[in-house]
Amino acid sequence: MLNDLRAQVLDANLELVRRGLVLYTFGNVSGIDRQTGYVVIKPSGIPYESMQAEHMVITDLDGNIVEGNLRPSSDLATHLLLYREFPSIGGVVHTHSEYATAWAQAGRSIPAYGTTHADYFYGPVPVTDELTLDDIGSDYVHNTGLAIVRCFRNLNPDAVPAVLVAGHAPFCWGKTPADAAHNAVVLESVARMAFYTATLNPECKGVSQALLDRHYFRKHGAHATYGQKG
Amino acid sequence: MLNDLRAQVLDANLELVRRGLVLYTFGNVSGIDRQTGYVVIKPSGIPYESMQAEHMVITDLDGNIVEGNLRPSSDLATHLLLYREFPSIGGVVHTHSEYATAWAQAGRSIPAYGTTHADYFYGPVPVTDELTLDDIGSDYVHNTGLAIVRCFRNLNPDAVPAVLVAGHAPFCWGKTPADAAHNAVVLESVARMAFYTATLNPECKGVSQALLDRHYFRKHGAHATYGQKG
Amino acid sequence: MLNDLRAQVLDANLELVRRGLVLYTFGNVSGIDRQTGYVVIKPSGIPYESMQAEHMVITDLDGNIVEGNLRPSSDLATHLLLYREFPSIGGVVHTHSEYATAWAQAGRSIPAYGTTHADYFYGPVPVTDELTLDDIGSDYVHNTGLAIVRCFRNLNPDAVPAVLVAGHAPFCWGKTPADAAHNAVVLESVARMAFYTATLNPECKGVSQALLDRHYFRKHGAHATYGQKG
Amino acid sequence: MLNDLRAQVLDANLELVRRGLVLYTFGNVSGIDRQTGYVVIKPSGIPYESMQAEHMVITDLDGNIVEGNLRPSSDLATHLLLYREFPSIGGVVHTHSEYATAWAQAGRSIPAYGTTHADYFYGPVPVTDELTLDDIGSDYVHNTGLAIVRCFRNLNPDAVPAVLVAGHAPFCWGKTPADAAHNAVVLESVARMAFYTATLNPECKGVSQALLDRHYFRKHGAHATYGQKG
Repeated sequence: MLNDLRAQVLDANLELVRRGLVLYTFGNVSGIDRQTGYVVIKPSGIPYESMQAEHMVITDLDGNIVEGNLRPSSDLATHLLLYREFPSIGGVVHTHSEYATAWAQAGRSIPAYGTTHADYFYGPVPVTDELTLDDIGSDYVHNTGLAIVRCFRNLNPDAVPAVLVAGHAPFCWGKTPADAAHNAVVLESVARMAFYTATLNPECKGVSQALLDRHYFRKHGAHATYGQKG
Repeated sequence: MLNDLRAQVLDANLELVRRGLVLYTFGNVSGIDRQTGYVVIKPSGIPYESMQAEHMVITDLDGNIVEGNLRPSSDLATHLLLYREFPSIGGVVHTHSEYATAWAQAGRSIPAYGTTHADYFYGPVPVTDELTLDDIGSDYVHNTGLAIVRCFRNLNPDAVPAVLVAGHAPFCWGKTPADAAHNAVVLESVARMAFYTATLNPECKGVSQALLDRHYFRKHGAHATYGQKG
Repeated sequence: MLNDLRAQVLDANLELVRRGLVLYTFGNVSGIDRQTGYVVIKPSGIPYESMQAEHMVITDLDGNIVEGNLRPSSDLATHLLLYREFPSIGGVVHTHSEYATAWAQAGRSIPAYGTTHADYFYGPVPVTDELTLDDIGSDYVHNTGLAIVRCFRNLNPDAVPAVLVAGHAPFCWGKTPADAAHNAVVLESVARMAFYTATLNPECKGVSQALLDRHYFRKHGAHATYGQKG
Repeated sequence: MLNDLRAQVLDANLELVRRGLVLYTFGNVSGIDRQTGYVVIKPSGIPYESMQAEHMVITDLDGNIVEGNLRPSSDLATHLLLYREFPSIGGVVHTHSEYATAWAQAGRSIPAYGTTHADYFYGPVPVTDELTLDDIGSDYVHNTGLAIVRCFRNLNPDAVPAVLVAGHAPFCWGKTPADAAHNAVVLESVARMAFYTATLNPECKGVSQALLDRHYFRKHGAHATYGQKG
């Protein structure tokens, strides 16, 4: 079932390994088939080295397992909530990539310090509020998703396809699992450069709205000029 | 003798190389067979490239060589004390991995800044007191172990399987040599992220007790939910 | 057409990959044939892994495509202006290499902190003024080039073959595409060391004029003593 | 002539490449045959990829070329002075390795912050005074050597086998070319950890004299306990 999506999810998981974003079994990628509403996700705690497409777990949007013998990623409930609340997305990635995680641990949004950021994220990459005792004590993984959704009340998840969960780590998304993984890789580079920038110039104001617009719409929307024509 | 444990200790030593934790002949791993009380440890100053299982040295818990023609690691006496004092552990790792060592040199415990930390270490990774002139002048390697043990008077070594020896470097442990090496690799990543976090937010308070509990017990104990069922 | 230059431009693009200066399709290199005034440049948004010499796009100095089916790099207009204004250069490189980009984002020139810098850059690597709303709103890529040219009103581009575009990233150049790429690689190393230096000693004054002269002219000009005789 | 030493010098040069200490043609290693007083040194500006033992240049202690068709390293005069002034050394290495160079650029000695440092360097790795206008304007490379020698007036070069030339980069030495290269690699790791340590704890006092003694003499001198018996 959903063999093409399984392969996409596997490959996006392996892209995290190729790019050095994950250690051991850390991290997870999922993809959704919007027609059936089924989600394909990495199993929990399986080494990347031996991971195969058939190890992927398929669930419905309520987390019921549809196919697969392994436990799904322990972050499944966060992925599912993002798919339910952000209807345009097709893939979700969670990593503990080190610089993005450091910004999350520091409780700081990543400012749009430059055009690399603006090419991908139309404004700061926000950090969620800290989870409350109640959030943590009850359905924690689901509540992590709720904290993300609250953080995007006034933000467009298509324009800012990443978030930092306070004290935890980033979640990214995209049109496809590959797109979500690509955003996770770029986020880590952006987070690294932002770390250096904040050290070199703690007062740095970041790019102007005009430059943010110019670069973001260079790569996105009907008037994009980057890359080859469709 | 103890061929399986020899192979485990060799492989855990090589894991340190694969993960970039050791330079030249730095670092050492040991494992214990609790039935015989024999300890298998890396020889001193032998290049990792040519290291074989038969080079491992076997000693008893008092450091008497039981099998092997090479000198054991010069840190043997610290390993032995940890095995005697922490009866639940099966492997010990010592590295000079660069970020963890920097925290040790700075004389600072690594705070539990985020969930990556909390997944492995149930509280800060503590730093020992500095060794006294007497400690250094007499049985230094043994006294290094005593400083670690004093540091854990009120800590559970199973819940915090790592320590920073002040002015020196980390020691880690685990149920097996592989587990101890895994903890050493994660400690270095945690130390790196903590360095970035402390730079981005010197006032960072770290995770709440609730979040520490939630993540630690997600991976440990009877109610663990991470990974596949035993 | 210009097959040798195509090969040079391809190889200089791949040198950026080999040296870790580019992520995904970021970055671009061009070269000019001064006899025809034709410029060979990387196509936009094509993966480096599959890039071939025949993918390179040839334009004239006004940006009219002379040969090639792919869109040229979206930074073409900046390259063209540099070729028109700096008549001695034969290659241009643009990357978002992370440390040089951080200095650009921070709005800081890279001071000549040491002899590595002085061997390549005869004075600080300057940062441009920020682009104005008008610059960004009209012919942005061309105006990026104008900001660079203004920055070099009183500087010799042969003596300082690199610039940081404020809020964006570096451009480098050289006698050939290979030379420009070499300068981009060294710039990133210099930017990295300058970051560490500024952290270790925020008051660092950098090298004296005499040391700058000594090292720069060791590698450049009629009295160069480095390397083998022509 | 001196084929064994040629091979040793080549291999020590390549060790710098393997350990990531040099970029392009940066860096150079030499070795001395104390019986003849001949020095074997890397040629200037030759790519490491194609370097062969026969490319090495042999000079006497006054810099007269004894064998070889290529120009010797442009740093030859510094190497020669070190061999003349430090009669116990057999190899010299110069790199622009990035962290050690940053300390040199910052004009700061590297404090003995921990036992990794103490295992190799019996006290801080000192930084020279800045070269004067006269030093730079006349026989600059020789004067660089004189600055190093002045820095060691009250230091034993066998106990501290490295120096930072202010505003420039490190020189290291050792009993053999391999030993000097080994010291250069460890110096870079020590410099990196010291950078992190100084950031985490700007007031860090470093190891006590007792700990410095304990570690240094663990690896050096008649009572060394590290490694296998001769």
